[in-house]
Amino acid sequence: MAQVMSNKQVLLRDFVNGRSPTESDMYVTTNTLSLKVPPQDSNVVLVKNLYLSCDPMMRFLIMKSDQRMSKYIYPSPGSPICGYGVAKVLDSSHPEFKEGDLVWGLTRWEEYSLLPNPQSLIKIHHTDVPLSYYTGILGMAGKTAYAGFFEVCRPKKGEYVFVSAASGAVGQLVGQFAKLAGCYVVGSAGSKEKVDLLKNKIGFDEAFNYKEEHDLDAALKRYFPEGIDIYFENVGGEMLDAVLQNMRVHGRIAVCGLISQYNIDEPEGCRNLIYLISKQVRMQGFLVFSYYHLYEKFLEMVLPAIKEGKITYVEDVVEGLESAPAALIGLYAGRNVGKQVVVVSRE
Amino acid sequence: MAQVMSNKQVLLRDFVNGRSPTESDMYVTTNTLSLKVPPQDSNVVLVKNLYLSCDPMMRFLIMKSDQRMSKYIYPSPGSPICGYGVAKVLDSSHPEFKEGDLVWGLTRWEEYSLLPNPQSLIKIHHTDVPLSYYTGILGMAGKTAYAGFFEVCRPKKGEYVFVSAASGAVGQLVGQFAKLAGCYVVGSAGSKEKVDLLKNKIGFDEAFNYKEEHDLDAALKRYFPEGIDIYFENVGGEMLDAVLQNMRVHGRIAVCGLISQYNIDEPEGCRNLIYLISKQVRMQGFLVFSYYHLYEKFLEMVLPAIKEGKITYVEDVVEGLESAPAALIGLYAGRNVGKQVVVVSRE
Repeated sequence: MAQVMSNKQVLLRDFVNGRSPTESDMYVTTNTLSLKVPPQDSNVVLVKNLYLSCDPMMRFLIMKSDQRMSKYIYPSPGSPICGYGVAKVLDSSHPEFKEGDLVWGLTRWEEYSLLPNPQSLIKIHHTDVPLSYYTGILGMAGKTAYAGFFEVCRPKKGEYVFVSAASGAVGQLVGQFAKLAGCYVVGSAGSKEKVDLLKNKIGFDEAFNYKEEHDLDAALKRYFPEGIDIYFENVGGEMLDAVLQNMRVHGRIAVCGLISQYNIDEPEGCRNLIYLISKQVRMQGFLVFSYYHLYEKFLEMVLPAIKEGKITYVEDVVEGLESAPAALIGLYAGRNVGKQVVVVSRE
Repeated sequence: MAQVMSNKQVLLRDFVNGRSPTESDMYVTTNTLSLKVPPQDSNVVLVKNLYLSCDPMMRFLIMKSDQRMSKYIYPSPGSPICGYGVAKVLDSSHPEFKEGDLVWGLTRWEEYSLLPNPQSLIKIHHTDVPLSYYTGILGMAGKTAYAGFFEVCRPKKGEYVFVSAASGAVGQLVGQFAKLAGCYVVGSAGSKEKVDLLKNKIGFDEAFNYKEEHDLDAALKRYFPEGIDIYFENVGGEMLDAVLQNMRVHGRIAVCGLISQYNIDEPEGCRNLIYLISKQVRMQGFLVFSYYHLYEKFLEMVLPAIKEGKITYVEDVVEGLESAPAALIGLYAGRNVGKQVVVVSRE
């Protein structure tokens, strides 16, 4: 007989449509799970979750939608929240995974998960960096920053780069990639603490608190008297309109996220698209999933940079599954400082 | 002594800011002009204007702006409207132009113009097509359609193409280029007459009257059940929002114009930019001025196509400078059917 363990879970209470999600849209409960893959299930892995990632895009995983691609990614009411995480394989009926493997990829917000789609899991080969980094800099956030900045924006040395939500998981990396590429980079964030972090620890040339600027256009003109070549867009709304007014000819905007618009019923309209024409700007949305083939190339660049201290990475770590709902909701209020991680277990 | 001629002109009364231009913002008057380049003026040409082009972008030429690049392009109050046209050289102190040359390029709304910047003029070598075509299909509109469709959109055979303001100077050509490229193409326009023209004469696969569709999203879903690969954007506003909802993965939007937004104080906001991310769409503004180097290549393609009847080109021709103000204002109300041309003189 397989050992049956108690399994703490964070479940979705109901779909969240047309309003902001709150902590009470999730609830913590304890279930049980057998610590063996059921013999009749092929290509399944059983994992112990170690670190979970809180990502802005998880907003879309808890909406009811007609365009759902996979029941494995989107939770239904009463089932665990889905998201990225780092886990350890306890048992496997999939030929590519075995007990003891460390993996990162799509998992569920619970202590133990039986995952029927392990092809989305990536084995971790480098363990001389903190394992939690695979929820961020060495996972989706890192790949997103890498693909968005290098592949979508195609930076040239000396260009002027602006990053919004700059202290977030993706933004802090884009800023550092920009410096490695020889660019001048300014970030915006929502508190003095974050601005200090960007300037003093992460290495942005300049940073400002957008909440203290009543005129974002004037703020950008102050930091970019020559205009902006590259905007790495994480927020949308008023900031995008202000940026559009300050783009340089042949500028590029990589649209990674629009977090300011996710939780409002009626998105603010973008009123300055006319500048796309007069400045001949390319504005391009992207999803990291289209750039999976770059992962090895990305690791070759970023692993040495981490070990040599050339890249700094800031995490905002909370302990325990019970803390996960508040951590996720906190993203939308900008409460996190750095990449938001939930520790389920350190072992 | 040089002959002094009466010179009818259309002058700008005053800058038009923050409201729609009207006919009364322009007035017709008659002045005199010596039909010789003054001896002290070097690099100047004197032309007789034959055909004038009415272009939506002329809206921006009659606004007061701090960012004016050239006093030659932007009229000041009391001076003639500037725009593209076809003209005949009567006299020249510029080594590249001589009496009798036919040219197209930036000129002024008057019978005769003394042009101090002839480097913007292009000599006409092919006169076995109607000369008025150099205000459109063989001029700015043609180059714009060519650069925007082939260079910005990069069409592939079999793709689904949507063109707004499809019966306009640029739109009708984009539709025909799309057919030549093996694409399926649908156009929108603002009257039954224009829709019939698109379907029956210009060769669009389908066309619809956007004024008769109370739900543009539903209309697009009807014409593009598989979604849109390429959108050639001429109008902005609600249409853009509806298109964004219907883009296919890796779609492209060439932003050529946003005519619905030019004359309103507060542009409508674009609320569906989120689809740029989920569909990984590239949205790119462009100006034809960056593609001048393609003009010869463009002529090589389009001249034979015109002569062989493979491309149809529809003009809306009015006679006389007196008709020019109403023709220009008519563009913004969508009154023109086809490229709006003003005949100053046929000789």
